[in-house]
Formats: sequence, C-alpha cells, structure tokens
Amino acid sequence: MAEEEGEKEVTLLGTWSSPFVLRVKWALRIKGVEYTYVEEDLRNKSPQLLQYNPVHKKVPVLVHRGRAIAESSVILHYIDEAWPHHPLLPHHPYEKAMARFWCKFEDDKLSPPLWRVLTTQAEEQREAQASAIESLGLLENELEGKKFFGGQTIGLVDVWFGALAYIIPIYEEITGLKLVEQRKLPRLCRWMEEFLSSPAVEGTLPPKDMLLPRYAAMREAFLAKAKRPEQQ
Amino acid sequence: MAEEEGEKEVTLLGTWSSPFVLRVKWALRIKGVEYTYVEEDLRNKSPQLLQYNPVHKKVPVLVHRGRAIAESSVILHYIDEAWPHHPLLPHHPYEKAMARFWCKFEDDKLSPPLWRVLTTQAEEQREAQASAIESLGLLENELEGKKFFGGQTIGLVDVWFGALAYIIPIYEEITGLKLVEQRKLPRLCRWMEEFLSSPAVEGTLPPKDMLLPRYAAMREAFLAKAKRPEQQ
Repeated sequence: MAEEEGEKEVTLLGTWSSPFVLRVKWALRIKGVEYTYVEEDLRNKSPQLLQYNPVHKKVPVLVHRGRAIAESSVILHYIDEAWPHHPLLPHHPYEKAMARFWCKFEDDKLSPPLWRVLTTQAEEQREAQASAIESLGLLENELEGKKFFGGQTIGLVDVWFGALAYIIPIYEEITGLKLVEQRKLPRLCRWMEEFLSSPAVEGTLPPKDMLLPRYAAMREAFLAKAKRPEQQ
Repeated sequence: MAEEEGEKEVTLLGTWSSPFVLRVKWALRIKGVEYTYVEEDLRNKSPQLLQYNPVHKKVPVLVHRGRAIAESSVILHYIDEAWPHHPLLPHHPYEKAMARFWCKFEDDKLSPPLWRVLTTQAEEQREAQASAIESLGLLENELEGKKFFGGQTIGLVDVWFGALAYIIPIYEEITGLKLVEQRKLPRLCRWMEEFLSSPAVEGTLPPKDMLLPRYAAMREAFLAKAKRPEQQ
C-alpha cells in the first residue's frame, strides 16, 4: 500500500540513542501516527539528512508530506497542531504557557547541571549535583495531586522530561551519585515508573546495556579532556 | 476606571535595557493591549518580581488577571493565544513550525556568536564574526520576496529578531567590526530599517546614548576578566 502511495506520509530521521528523537517517537505514538523510521549514522550523515536539515544537520527531523521540520521542540508543537486529537498541550492559553515554561526550565535549569554531573568531578560535580537536585525539587512540587505533568494523561511536559526518567538512573549508576531519592522526591519517583511503563513508551527505550557504556565513555572522554591543560 | 476594576488587567515587569522585554512590549502593542509597565531594578529586585518569577527571578514577567508568565518565548506565545487578533504566528502548522524554527535558530546560532563578537577579541572574535555573518546570511535568504519575516506584516520572527536590528549597529560601533553590510545583506538592511520605523516599535527603543556605554562597559568587563588568568 505504502509503495502505491509513493512517498510515505510521515518519516522520522533519528538515531537510536538520542533522547530528542525519543520525544518525537512518543508524541507520534500518542497521536497514533504511523511513520517510517530511518536510522541515521551521525558520523556519516545521509544526503537525506543534509537535504532536510541543512542548517543544523542534526536529528530528529520529521518529514510530513515531503516537508521537513527540525528541532524537537518545534516538531512536538507541529505534531500537536497537525494531529490535534489526544492533545499534548492543554487548551487554555495560561495552562499552555505553564507547560512551555517547564519545558524551557528543563532546557535551562535541569539538563545543564545533569550533564555536568556526568562530565565533571570533585567540587564542580558536587555543585552540579546540588543544582540538579534543586531543579528536580521544583518538578516534585509540580506533580502535587497529579499522575503526570499533563494531569491524568501524558502531555508535552511528560514527553519533554521523559528521557530523563530513563537517563538519570544511568547517570547515577555511572557516577555513583544519587539524584532522585525516593525519600526526598517520592512523586517524581512514581512519575518515572508510571511514565516508563506507559503504552506511549513501551518498547521504545534504547537497551540499557548499550546506553550505559556509551555515557560512561562520554564521561571518560570529558574527564580526560579536562585533565589535559594541567599536564601541559 | 482602572481603580474601580481593582487590579489592572495586564502588567509587564521589565527593565529599560532588556531586548527580551522589548519583544513583549512590541507584541502587546501589535495586539493593542493596554498594560501597566513596572520598571525593575535587577540589583534590588522587588518583592513582586520574586513572587511572580520565583524560579528565574528575571524580567520580563507578564501578569494577566493576577497570573504571572515568565520567559519571553512563553510570553509571546501566550499573548498570541490570549489575544488572537492580529496573529503573530501564521495559521498553518507547517508555517508555524518554520517561525518557531527561526526563533530557535536565533537563540542557538545567532545570539551566541553576536555576544562573543562583543565580549572577546583577536582570533576568537574574528571566528565569532564569521559565524554571526553566516547565520545572518541564512536570515537574508528567508527574507526573499518578503517585507517582514512574517510576510507583509510583522510576525513572531520579526518580534524575536527585532532587538538585534537595534543592537547590531551598537555592537558594530563598539567593536569596529562590520556585521550587516548593505552590499552583502541588502534585504536584512532594508528589514532593519522597516522594522525599526514600524508603528509597533516607534517610541519603544531605549536611548542609544544610554545603551552604547552600557554595552561598551560589558565588553571591557569581559575582556578584563579574560585577561586575569594570564596575569596570575
């Protein structure tokens, strides 16, 4: 059937390990949109990727009826607007604004310290850990009385943070530092379990035994790089 | 009348020199929304600012019917959704996605090199200049056949980039480096003139004789800071 239609309607260009690509996969699954997935090798980018995302040359790229959209935040909004059933964003402008605020919060106040927890050590790492835990505490408050950030169902903020539910325990395992303690962040712990076992996510997560050595190698590379100037 | 209503409906907390606050002022003017403007002193933040934006403690903050919204990107979307006449975003999901893409492009690929042009020197500054000019070239292409990024009228992307139309010449004056050359970027030059003289912008720009020494002092402070490790 797809061959008869010529170009399949929706194509996602991604890489298996990208949390940004996962966001798009989850949003498409929530909407029930069928798509062709194309795995990209970022060390040897395909002509298709370079053609569809000439500015950033990155994944994810969503191609819908031959028109390409890049950047996960832009793609998620597009998916929510092009397929309006099962909305990811709430209806009211103020509620929408709050959802967007928390997505931006993740970009600005949570992802950067988490990354530093993975890629630094000693004092710098301890400061990053404290900063990440402070941000996670604000998310804990947001979950008061709610199953998901989106309320009773998964919404934009859940999809946005979702990859962290999977990656934070990997960072904890590699660094030996605790970030999400059941005792201190019980709602967030429950949310992580609920989200990761939800139908939207089931079967989409990259194998932990492939992701863990990948992040461990990144940590080693960053620590080695940070050491170099001292040795000169 | 406003006193009888009790709390005025729309309040904007800002500082005179912030390009992020300018974006919000322009959007409100395009929509014809009346508001109370409150100038904040960021060295001595008001209880109101700390109450309304406890996470970031930054301006702009828009308060609408007692509910606060922070982050200029979130505020602009809110304004466009709460006052839907004179839309800032186009109607079609794909066109919307393109507008959001270019706003994110400014955040990721234009603002950072422009800032480095202002705050560094020598090789680092020359690289930043080349990078900024490359990004500006992509914007030049976007303006083909259009008066504004939004088409015949000012849209989200115009409001997003708008402050740069004013700030780039100030950076050029301080650093002695050319960024927007009429010969190479004629559409962007015309857009800068058109935008800055548009009714949305008229009378909102901070006085150049106050902004220029402010940015010049920032440059000096960054250069002095960069020198310090070498002196130790």
